[in-house]
Amino acid sequence: MNQTYSIFETILTIRPDDIDMNGHVHNSRYLDYVLAARYDQMKKDYKMSMDEFIKQDLGWVVSAVNIEFKRALFLGEQIKVKTQVESASGAQVKVNFLIEKFETGKVASEGQFLYTMISTKTGRPARITEEIISQYSI
Amino acid sequence: MNQTYSIFETILTIRPDDIDMNGHVHNSRYLDYVLAARYDQMKKDYKMSMDEFIKQDLGWVVSAVNIEFKRALFLGEQIKVKTQVESASGAQVKVNFLIEKFETGKVASEGQFLYTMISTKTGRPARITEEIISQYSI
Amino acid sequence: MNQTYSIFETILTIRPDDIDMNGHVHNSRYLDYVLAARYDQMKKDYKMSMDEFIKQDLGWVVSAVNIEFKRALFLGEQIKVKTQVESASGAQVKVNFLIEKFETGKVASEGQFLYTMISTKTGRPARITEEIISQYSI
Amino acid sequence: MNQTYSIFETILTIRPDDIDMNGHVHNSRYLDYVLAARYDQMKKDYKMSMDEFIKQDLGWVVSAVNIEFKRALFLGEQIKVKTQVESASGAQVKVNFLIEKFETGKVASEGQFLYTMISTKTGRPARITEEIISQYSI
Repeated sequence: MNQTYSIFETILTIRPDDIDMNGHVHNSRYLDYVLAARYDQMKKDYKMSMDEFIKQDLGWVVSAVNIEFKRALFLGEQIKVKTQVESASGAQVKVNFLIEKFETGKVASEGQFLYTMISTKTGRPARITEEIISQYSI
Repeated sequence: MNQTYSIFETILTIRPDDIDMNGHVHNSRYLDYVLAARYDQMKKDYKMSMDEFIKQDLGWVVSAVNIEFKRALFLGEQIKVKTQVESASGAQVKVNFLIEKFETGKVASEGQFLYTMISTKTGRPARITEEIISQYSI
Repeated sequence: MNQTYSIFETILTIRPDDIDMNGHVHNSRYLDYVLAARYDQMKKDYKMSMDEFIKQDLGWVVSAVNIEFKRALFLGEQIKVKTQVESASGAQVKVNFLIEKFETGKVASEGQFLYTMISTKTGRPARITEEIISQYSI
Repeated sequence: MNQTYSIFETILTIRPDDIDMNGHVHNSRYLDYVLAARYDQMKKDYKMSMDEFIKQDLGWVVSAVNIEFKRALFLGEQIKVKTQVESASGAQVKVNFLIEKFETGKVASEGQFLYTMISTKTGRPARITEEIISQYSI
């Protein structure tokens, strides 16, 4: 992760319904963990929760995900989800993430989300304003 | 199931992500199967899809569920979900359901959902109109 | 809830992927919250985690659920899940639960799970031993 | 998609519980659709179902996913999931996928899964045998 933007962290606990037939966390749930971390961090760290976007008729959709699965996660484990903005341009923001095992700090997964801001009225991409960029430039 | 209202059927295929750490369908997914069946049957059998309710600013919420789990469901199986209105009163409808294994007809689960119709504008219960009752009295 | 057995509590945070098209927690996720609370309490309160059952070739399956949905749960809310054994007999345990909104204490849901202990070797019900009953009789 | 390996198809129907607070299919469910399609195709097209791998103490885990979300999917829609092996090497197989809207053929999503074959006894990567490669080289 680079040094331009801050790295924010969220601790999550794995739920039994996250475990699949292989006895570890189901692969698609990793995406849900990153989503949960971003919601938490929008409120806690960026001081601009999803609710405030919604009030302005704005929303975020996921346009692309690259994810590597490096270690299985098991029931009873806690994870630390770290995210960091890499860049923002037009209507899109690239966010890097790391999922670490809380106890050992070992990396369970890493990758990148590409988010697009949309107008919830039109469903079309909406250019990210300077105000939002400055709020996220921490 | 009684004889007053028709019994409608929907065939569903179990997905890998429905299987939990015990190697069979996760208990809460049975509720999702009944929901999927009702949506299918509203459109296919009652000729009044959820979309039409939404256009009238109406929605349905689940107020109570009683469910018995009788046989485990496994990956690769298909199921037949049978539902039947038991009664309608005020803003509420009771719907009985059966989940059968498609191949053998053996009962995997049975129970009842209590649904409440709400106004999506106010979020409050909305009396089920005679028109809707007649549409569902088949 | 009665006074014979202790009431145990677990605090959970709602995740964005728990929210459905109606904008509140999806009905079947309430069952997952109770499951998560039981796992947490088996370890934290009963001092006999699911792992210990598994080591003894034992497991728990859900045989029946009765659940009432009283208040919608929203993104950003925390919940307190209270559970209490009502009775144990043969291979089965009845567990009452309450889901409260953490901030207000208002009841979002209540009901009962009927669990059956099984041998993971045979898949058949296994009589709950005196040792387990005494461990759970708190 | 290239011409070396066959392209296989699976039709799936979107379930109500796949829809999230934004009113369209939740992003992580796309991964579940690809998983469901692969299971279906292993049985239907490759004539070597997951069960046969399990009997040989082999399993498949997801090591990486690249996915682009191009069009939202809505309740009531059917999708066609196309997958195609791109290459196999050591313990890993790259599989390209396309998710199309069944009615229009428009692409909703595309990307690639990297799967690793593991020994379920050791949990470690297992070299893909010539027999498996030949079975999958269609």
